[in-house]
Amino acid sequence: MLPGGSPRVVNLGLEIFAGELTRRGIRVAHVDWRPPAGGDARLVALLARLDAHRDAVERANAEALARLTDGLPVLVDCRPAREALELADRTVLHSGPPIDWGRMCAPMRAAVVGAVRYEGWAANDDAATALVAAGAVRLSPCHHHRAVGPMTGIITPSMPVFVVENRVFGTRAHATINEGLGKVLRFGASDSTVIARLRWMATEAGPLLGAGLRAGGGVDLRALMAQALRMGDEMHQRNVAASSLLARALMPGVAKAGGRHQAVARLAEFIAGNDQFFLNLAMAAGKAMADPAGGVPGSTLVTTMARNGTEFGIRVSALGERWLTAPVNTPDGLYFPGFGPADANPDMGDSAIVETVGLGGLAMAASPAVARFVGAGGMAAALAITEEMREITAGEHPHFRIPTLDERGSPVGIDVRRVVDTGILPLINTGIAGRTAGVGQVGAGVVRAPLGCFTAALEALAV
Amino acid sequence: MLPGGSPRVVNLGLEIFAGELTRRGIRVAHVDWRPPAGGDARLVALLARLDAHRDAVERANAEALARLTDGLPVLVDCRPAREALELADRTVLHSGPPIDWGRMCAPMRAAVVGAVRYEGWAANDDAATALVAAGAVRLSPCHHHRAVGPMTGIITPSMPVFVVENRVFGTRAHATINEGLGKVLRFGASDSTVIARLRWMATEAGPLLGAGLRAGGGVDLRALMAQALRMGDEMHQRNVAASSLLARALMPGVAKAGGRHQAVARLAEFIAGNDQFFLNLAMAAGKAMADPAGGVPGSTLVTTMARNGTEFGIRVSALGERWLTAPVNTPDGLYFPGFGPADANPDMGDSAIVETVGLGGLAMAASPAVARFVGAGGMAAALAITEEMREITAGEHPHFRIPTLDERGSPVGIDVRRVVDTGILPLINTGIAGRTAGVGQVGAGVVRAPLGCFTAALEALAV
Repeated sequence: MLPGGSPRVVNLGLEIFAGELTRRGIRVAHVDWRPPAGGDARLVALLARLDAHRDAVERANAEALARLTDGLPVLVDCRPAREALELADRTVLHSGPPIDWGRMCAPMRAAVVGAVRYEGWAANDDAATALVAAGAVRLSPCHHHRAVGPMTGIITPSMPVFVVENRVFGTRAHATINEGLGKVLRFGASDSTVIARLRWMATEAGPLLGAGLRAGGGVDLRALMAQALRMGDEMHQRNVAASSLLARALMPGVAKAGGRHQAVARLAEFIAGNDQFFLNLAMAAGKAMADPAGGVPGSTLVTTMARNGTEFGIRVSALGERWLTAPVNTPDGLYFPGFGPADANPDMGDSAIVETVGLGGLAMAASPAVARFVGAGGMAAALAITEEMREITAGEHPHFRIPTLDERGSPVGIDVRRVVDTGILPLINTGIAGRTAGVGQVGAGVVRAPLGCFTAALEALAV
Repeated sequence: MLPGGSPRVVNLGLEIFAGELTRRGIRVAHVDWRPPAGGDARLVALLARLDAHRDAVERANAEALARLTDGLPVLVDCRPAREALELADRTVLHSGPPIDWGRMCAPMRAAVVGAVRYEGWAANDDAATALVAAGAVRLSPCHHHRAVGPMTGIITPSMPVFVVENRVFGTRAHATINEGLGKVLRFGASDSTVIARLRWMATEAGPLLGAGLRAGGGVDLRALMAQALRMGDEMHQRNVAASSLLARALMPGVAKAGGRHQAVARLAEFIAGNDQFFLNLAMAAGKAMADPAGGVPGSTLVTTMARNGTEFGIRVSALGERWLTAPVNTPDGLYFPGFGPADANPDMGDSAIVETVGLGGLAMAASPAVARFVGAGGMAAALAITEEMREITAGEHPHFRIPTLDERGSPVGIDVRRVVDTGILPLINTGIAGRTAGVGQVGAGVVRAPLGCFTAALEALAV
């Protein structure tokens, strides 16, 4: 409906004309209109080429969307990465698309060095740096090893990882145990408290979680996530509901399995103190759900979004394992006291898998508190963001439904064509890492995926 | 803003005229207007009498509202009612205002009989009934003993009760451990499974919860409830967030305290299986917060709403401990398969203390899922209900804020004057008990407090 009841002029496109008319006392309704693909003739031609076999693309996308949304992720175990991922010795996994040591950002380099020291492959940071620089440590993206990692995303063989099984499609995905806030390896810190926590995870928490999960019979993460979405979590920036639901679901099995009750108490306390405990599981569930959507010939839907602090990479169903990358943006948002935009590292982590499956920024309408927290406004802004994301997605999630939208499904299935056509870029809710190694998290905000990934994908698709 | 842009006629009051004008092609804006106090001259006179010293009433209400909303309820212990409430032998507490055995509804009588058998004061139902009918068992409202109980509200000396302390005003309030769904004493069931669960609570779960709370240092329920309200709980019909947050907060202490790990596992499993586990604690917190608001001379704010299945009773600040009662309504709502309105018992339980402190029906905007569940509609209906409740309340809760309303506080402090003036009755979210003893819960819905309580209060206040 047009505002104002009976406008005399309808203004399309640039708002400046509307402002001018209004100043002259003429009633105006402004409609936000942009030319397709920002008026770029080359992109318009590529879109037209895809449009020539539109029906085939739509059929492929329907298939990919069904695979993306029909999965049933179940948390079944927690085991060392060495076993669960068959991770070789002297291997360090990191977030995002592939990247060489030389091009890694400072926090990621610091985290790699800390991980090498944690594994005992080097005695100190200098020795660890030399070892990595010499190529004696294999660096590889989590996504290439059925895994995902937040921020720097580091996974090494002795770290315990949660095992999430997609019961419909048979895929498995993995993620480490979330370390909590403050000094943590995922933000590039690696002092003695960080290493001590990682050792406790490997020797006590991980084995206890694994035993508890095996004793308890697994946790249906799809049902838990659907429930948490009804409780104000979008499962990227906010996981307090999912973390609480998971804690409640885990404890009976953990208590059953746990002979040493002080170990149970320590684990319960750790879980109770971390509202983002579930984030890593949302990511593993996301990957377990997204992976089956890959490799559908002709499909233009995005199956991966991931960042390594230097580049943003996407993968697209029809293009299989191929990464389409572009320089990553730096998030906008709110900063912790003492920090500002100048302290921010460019965007980092595999956590955008959450947006890939229709949560996070795409489900902002479920989380007005997150919209406020990241400085995007309140309820109206939250609704507007999810509405905007509908413009670039292929459908609505049949399981992830939003109560403030009267149970309408979250937008899901980002379509490369629609992104390029509309110029609307996927919105990602994210933590902000300090750009200096060891500083840790400095804020939280939102970031847009860079257009370059999507135009590159369009070129590859329209061949 | 009037609908339709430029109406020609504004219709006040009866909608039938608006309909008639519309049929004749005349543009009409209908405004829902009712005469004060439904046009009842006697009530209008009573309101006018109070209005003569309006400033004094407003000052008294500001004081009562501050006491009602400034409390800090902390869960500190779980102990037998015998100790915590100094409950004498052969005493059975029930919900709502005082009521004789002869006037109790069937589910409440059945629950009393079951409780007598559970305590071992009689060997079977006939002997228990004879004992109660002979006056050998003292029946008394929970509210007279610093306690609240859901549905029939039964508390006997050996039952463990949670202890909630209001750290600002020094009051304490108590409630039993929620029994879960299915066959439960609070709905009048008392077969061997019900009694066995009550014994487990008294011998294992209660002592373990008490030890865990003492080991853990207590749980700040105000912060937890504020958080749960942000997670879609209105804390009457829906407590899944609060129950999960509480489970997460309790387990570290319970694990620390619990030597026998199978007992910890049993308790964890029981808590994990009951989304309404927190209801009793919301009620105890509500009473701990509401009690300090009683006894403010001149204040017309409601400090208690409670039902015994026969009568609805309120207490009002200026009137202290005095109950104002009227016959209770039967809830409207949705029924479990196989049941319908004919199976419903009139409304029952002390749980309306939750609405008294600004949650439940008054906070419907926080819980669109509840609005759907009870058949009241979706998001728009949820917002409209909370908006309506603002008409009869003195303020907004400083701690209980609603994210869908951009953190605006929940309406709180039901004012007898406004209820009578507007004819808008407090809306209560509630479970529906079967009217036949032992049937248990048959549905869930909403119910309005009866006007008679409020007109009786107005008469007492305007003397």
